[in-house]
Amino acid sequence: MIPQSEFETDDWSIRETRLDLSRLAQTESVFALGNGHIGVRGNLDEGEPFGLPGTYLNGFYEARPLPYAEAGYGYPEAGQTVVNVTNGKIIRLLVDDELFDLRYGRLIHHERTLDFRSGLLHRQAEWRSPGHRGVRVRSTRMVSLVQRAVMAIEYEVEVLDTPARVVIQSELVANEDLPVTSKDPRVAALLSNPLEAVEHDGVGTQGLLAHQTRASGLRLAAAMTHICDTPEAWETDNDTFPDSARVTIIAELKPGQKLHLVKLVAYGWSSERSIPALRDQVAAALAAAKHTGWDGMLAEQRGYLDEFWDHADVHVDGDQEIQQAVRFGQFQILQAGARAEGRAIPAKGLTGPGYDGHAFWDSESYVLPALTYSLPSAASDALKWRHSILPQAKDRAKTLGLRGAAFPWRTIAGEECSAYWPAGTAAFHVTADVADAVARFQLVAGNDDFALRFGTDLLIESARLWASLGYFDAVGDFRIDGVTGPDEYSAIADNNAYTNMMAKRNLLAAVQALSVPHTDRSRWDVSDEEMMTWQRAADHMRLCYDERLKVHPQADGFTDHKVWDFADTDQSQYPLLLNFPYFDLYRKQVVKQADLVLALFRASHEFTADEKQRNFEYYEPLTVRDSSLSASIQAIMAAETGHLDLAYDYWGEAALMDLDDLEHNTADGLHIASLAGAWMVAVNGFGGLRDTEGKLSFEPRLPAALRSLTFNLLFQGTHLNVAIHPHEARYTCSSDDNHIDLEHYGEKVRVGPGGTQVRKIPEVKPRPQPRQPPGREPAQRGRNPQ
Amino acid sequence: MIPQSEFETDDWSIRETRLDLSRLAQTESVFALGNGHIGVRGNLDEGEPFGLPGTYLNGFYEARPLPYAEAGYGYPEAGQTVVNVTNGKIIRLLVDDELFDLRYGRLIHHERTLDFRSGLLHRQAEWRSPGHRGVRVRSTRMVSLVQRAVMAIEYEVEVLDTPARVVIQSELVANEDLPVTSKDPRVAALLSNPLEAVEHDGVGTQGLLAHQTRASGLRLAAAMTHICDTPEAWETDNDTFPDSARVTIIAELKPGQKLHLVKLVAYGWSSERSIPALRDQVAAALAAAKHTGWDGMLAEQRGYLDEFWDHADVHVDGDQEIQQAVRFGQFQILQAGARAEGRAIPAKGLTGPGYDGHAFWDSESYVLPALTYSLPSAASDALKWRHSILPQAKDRAKTLGLRGAAFPWRTIAGEECSAYWPAGTAAFHVTADVADAVARFQLVAGNDDFALRFGTDLLIESARLWASLGYFDAVGDFRIDGVTGPDEYSAIADNNAYTNMMAKRNLLAAVQALSVPHTDRSRWDVSDEEMMTWQRAADHMRLCYDERLKVHPQADGFTDHKVWDFADTDQSQYPLLLNFPYFDLYRKQVVKQADLVLALFRASHEFTADEKQRNFEYYEPLTVRDSSLSASIQAIMAAETGHLDLAYDYWGEAALMDLDDLEHNTADGLHIASLAGAWMVAVNGFGGLRDTEGKLSFEPRLPAALRSLTFNLLFQGTHLNVAIHPHEARYTCSSDDNHIDLEHYGEKVRVGPGGTQVRKIPEVKPRPQPRQPPGREPAQRGRNPQ
Repeated sequence: MIPQSEFETDDWSIRETRLDLSRLAQTESVFALGNGHIGVRGNLDEGEPFGLPGTYLNGFYEARPLPYAEAGYGYPEAGQTVVNVTNGKIIRLLVDDELFDLRYGRLIHHERTLDFRSGLLHRQAEWRSPGHRGVRVRSTRMVSLVQRAVMAIEYEVEVLDTPARVVIQSELVANEDLPVTSKDPRVAALLSNPLEAVEHDGVGTQGLLAHQTRASGLRLAAAMTHICDTPEAWETDNDTFPDSARVTIIAELKPGQKLHLVKLVAYGWSSERSIPALRDQVAAALAAAKHTGWDGMLAEQRGYLDEFWDHADVHVDGDQEIQQAVRFGQFQILQAGARAEGRAIPAKGLTGPGYDGHAFWDSESYVLPALTYSLPSAASDALKWRHSILPQAKDRAKTLGLRGAAFPWRTIAGEECSAYWPAGTAAFHVTADVADAVARFQLVAGNDDFALRFGTDLLIESARLWASLGYFDAVGDFRIDGVTGPDEYSAIADNNAYTNMMAKRNLLAAVQALSVPHTDRSRWDVSDEEMMTWQRAADHMRLCYDERLKVHPQADGFTDHKVWDFADTDQSQYPLLLNFPYFDLYRKQVVKQADLVLALFRASHEFTADEKQRNFEYYEPLTVRDSSLSASIQAIMAAETGHLDLAYDYWGEAALMDLDDLEHNTADGLHIASLAGAWMVAVNGFGGLRDTEGKLSFEPRLPAALRSLTFNLLFQGTHLNVAIHPHEARYTCSSDDNHIDLEHYGEKVRVGPGGTQVRKIPEVKPRPQPRQPPGREPAQRGRNPQ
Repeated sequence: MIPQSEFETDDWSIRETRLDLSRLAQTESVFALGNGHIGVRGNLDEGEPFGLPGTYLNGFYEARPLPYAEAGYGYPEAGQTVVNVTNGKIIRLLVDDELFDLRYGRLIHHERTLDFRSGLLHRQAEWRSPGHRGVRVRSTRMVSLVQRAVMAIEYEVEVLDTPARVVIQSELVANEDLPVTSKDPRVAALLSNPLEAVEHDGVGTQGLLAHQTRASGLRLAAAMTHICDTPEAWETDNDTFPDSARVTIIAELKPGQKLHLVKLVAYGWSSERSIPALRDQVAAALAAAKHTGWDGMLAEQRGYLDEFWDHADVHVDGDQEIQQAVRFGQFQILQAGARAEGRAIPAKGLTGPGYDGHAFWDSESYVLPALTYSLPSAASDALKWRHSILPQAKDRAKTLGLRGAAFPWRTIAGEECSAYWPAGTAAFHVTADVADAVARFQLVAGNDDFALRFGTDLLIESARLWASLGYFDAVGDFRIDGVTGPDEYSAIADNNAYTNMMAKRNLLAAVQALSVPHTDRSRWDVSDEEMMTWQRAADHMRLCYDERLKVHPQADGFTDHKVWDFADTDQSQYPLLLNFPYFDLYRKQVVKQADLVLALFRASHEFTADEKQRNFEYYEPLTVRDSSLSASIQAIMAAETGHLDLAYDYWGEAALMDLDDLEHNTADGLHIASLAGAWMVAVNGFGGLRDTEGKLSFEPRLPAALRSLTFNLLFQGTHLNVAIHPHEARYTCSSDDNHIDLEHYGEKVRVGPGGTQVRKIPEVKPRPQPRQPPGREPAQRGRNPQ
């Protein structure tokens, strides 16, 4: 059953028309704004009530010791936790002597709208105070995609019925009290009082707070300025303290009169630069924003987004809810990655403190495919971040007795922060996922400069990891023993199929990169012998197979294990990890998230169509999807194996993860990877795009419920529009100069400059739909009559 | 190379004739006294200098939270740590105004002797103060094996050369400062200031301190009294404070005169009884001891030990060092277990704070075999302790989703205290080890009362664990997946051979116990079906075999793993766990301690002689013996597979573990299991005793270096003496009434009442000795010319 959505369905926005205080934290995540550089949760302007206040700066974290009751060699000693920094969103309002607080008085109208095309969060409220003063408040909030250090708020208050004295307090507040939200081990440990005041300053309508962290040694400046406009005279006041800066604006308004305010806030932070340098930096950002002006910033934002949607939009005809959710997802991916520029894309973006603000393999495996085809500059930046943490990854490999680079399971600044090695350090596949993203980027972006400068470094150091992690056994197979694949309900197993197949791709990509004519291999000190070992390891990479069941075990021995007792598992016991010990999960056939099924997608050419079908249908009844990373991959492989209605259901699950709060933890931040997964379902699932063999190949097919599905891709700088209808697909190349070569169901198709190629879609033979574990069936979406 | 021992070699004692302050902590462990109820480290009477002050009461612990950076379902939340309680050993001495402190002045003579026959620790010191006053101090310390709550010290000071004023301060001191000894994760976390003062009292030469712990809620009373005797007049003083009670005795002595003091100390502790009850309890213990008197207590102690040695002694002819070490070991096992009476036997006994004072599987697998054959009452008590924690073990099983009882990996009071589940919770074999000890006890002690009241409960609840932990797979095998065997350098593997074979024995023992005619099965609610499942699981228990190598993998897939790179591992990198991550150890062929080799011993009948030989020789080069539990088992299987010189070397390693401080951590307490292992090498190794098939079978054989080896066993109440000579074995039954049936190399032998049977020992064909990992060869003991 699909829970009733809180939001109204609209193609290009998310609109909330009533305020449910119990879901405030979820909506704060949904209405979060960001640009990959700074992120602000959708907290109410007046600060309270809140679900979870949040303002985040990419890469700004505090270090904390990781405690172990029994420590071990190589355990990371320090963790990193994203810090809720100085809140610049707060604009408090007093009407006569009464504070504008929705928990008191009467809320006559309330509306919030996140607009994907303008990149703005609008809010309207009409409120009558306990003392019967009426006001109408309207605000528009923006985190600029163009001026990356700047957040801006347009705030307007109108007095209704009777004259009133209006007092506005616009603030910067550091070290806000945070609620403790959850005992779930996956939810971030929250830090209290993380910022040490260094400097505070205020004059006129300006204010500045400078802070630093105690352990990680990061410095931060936040500054604000205001542009005020009202028909009546107004006065201002300015108070600053170490943890707060306050600009007060007072005016007497008659009914119908409005006080109009634009608040500009800028952030600067650094581990290197001094506080004076940061002061100047935020002052410059404010000056630039003021120079551009509110209307100018609106126009910039719209321009940026128009361009994005022009070459990235996914259009769904036949399901407005999915249409809205997919665009919401694309917008949030953009907000997570657009201006990260050399910093990580965390699992929650900058929308909440979940997972401590860490980045995982999600970035490369879920977010980057979407960014690579829609905003390649952001994908390039994200890979440059990986490149920037190569020193830490090489150190980590060394600590572990390995060569090359071992990327961290979870991190903010590059160091491994996972305190549970069986599901952290042992999950070496993250390094192959980085290499996979590099190879995809190299194919799609055609960016030789990047390839030479960064990509090849990453491919080589990751290939070295695999060569040292695996070994040739007595029968000549290359084995990778004792590692953990994507499925977190198994760990420390031999020859995880996904890991081995991704390592193979990694090794081959490194060989290929070095085989480009005129490549100077001496730069990487790669000998002929080393390259031959990579090739040989790839050629002999072990992929185990269960002859009895005719399926591929997820790892050696997996299919010999007992199948989880799903019949005796109660609905309330999911997610299983909160109700069963790891030891029991690990030793049984129960899958948290796509693992072997992910291998079927990412290493598509390693499996025959028959094998894919059998494997998908074998793993489907074992997969409980306790991870938000699962539904999108299940959807993609359901589509490929002919289960189109199931794929469609899973699309809904991936796309509506946060809008419907399916995992009950959107409060901690959005599931960026699931949102990116919704894009993948469109493109890789129903579009059937595969890109791991040096070419684009499509096998499009639509579920019965849809009339058409259209998506746009950037391929080597050229714009490709793919429109899928029930019986045909149309490939259109918008470039005037370049053609695009692709495959449609194995047929080579050249789409000429400005041209369109139309191809038939073969009929999909329906197959009996596999079952999921009882109670874990995805919500069924409406089916069109066949 | 054998490091130079600190101690003089003597058959019946350990004597130290010089004081090496740098090895003080080690000698404090070696000279520890105890009775299983209370334990005191061999700290100097005067309290300082010390290595590590220690006074322990069995079961007296403090609870502490176990921290997890990433918690998980079923992780134990509280740890238990043994507490250093009120120190009753302290007797300070002032000579004129100078404190007797060996670090100052001149130590002319110093000697400490631990006597295994009298059960006493003697000390003599002749010292000249910085101010040139000479004194001779002599003390004798005892922890009574007969009056279990009492420690007693005879203390005598003699003034030399010139008259002097002698001041003796005899004390009880609580909350002593403790040094932090190690960063090794295996070494216990130390608690500071663990005791909260409740009451203190003193009059005349008596003093009492009562304390309680803050979290675990245990109460403790310690009391002392004195008997003083000197030729001159003497005065006393009495001061008590919350954390110290002091009795001061002052006398003026002429040269040659002696002040003679007997200090009696009693301890009482409880989680139930009130402080007044504990006061009375210790007062009664002191009154009884005073009534017995010092000489009476000496006689009691001697009497207890005479009886023990009479039926337990191991006599080694040809190696005095081993002779001494084996008797030292037997004495320390006795001290660890003699009067535990319903409490655990910790891995370190009561000799130090190592492993937090926890008991492991060591008790059942190493200590109990020795106690079962030499002091069955102590073995019975130890099993009753296991029985007493059945409620916690059943709770634990429930938490883990299992039936029956899951005994804790490490505990003091019964709750699981292991914070690292792959090497704790997953090591389910501990439950089979308990069952193994029960089955052995039932065979050897012939104690039907115990069997009915306690043993069968343990066998049934443990069998239920295995039935729920394993499952019948598609081919009908009973598999136990995802568990950890004894080898801590592997974890979470399928079908660990040791675990499976021990589970099999457990299941069969339970079936057998219930198959005794007239057994009322309803008491345990065991259905026919349940029993049939146990039998079927045992019959089909999986034991994997590597056809290529013709050996048994330690667990599924083990022999496919890469062999550890021993050649590139430096001496300084042992123990490996301190220098390599678990992930790397787990996925390679490297063995910390006997695992498959332990299965060859404990499940002897499951393997042919050929298989044992091949297996032993395969695992020997993989086994690094980073655990003190290893050498004894390697010795036993080396002896069985014909490597007698190697067995002899390993005997040395097991027996000298603490006397030579082979693992550099004897400071934290003795390795009781290794000392018990030295007994096993004599009896199960060179004696070749196997007892797991309902009978005693011997295959004795001597290493060339020994002239003879004799040991004594109690079997079903009857005393059996086994004397092994190079070519014959003599079995003597000392009973006047009973005979003993045994097997000698497969031949049935009945040793009649008071009779002796002599049998020839077949020649052992020498085989090429297997190699150990480079640098991990055991120290070679002198070889007799062949």
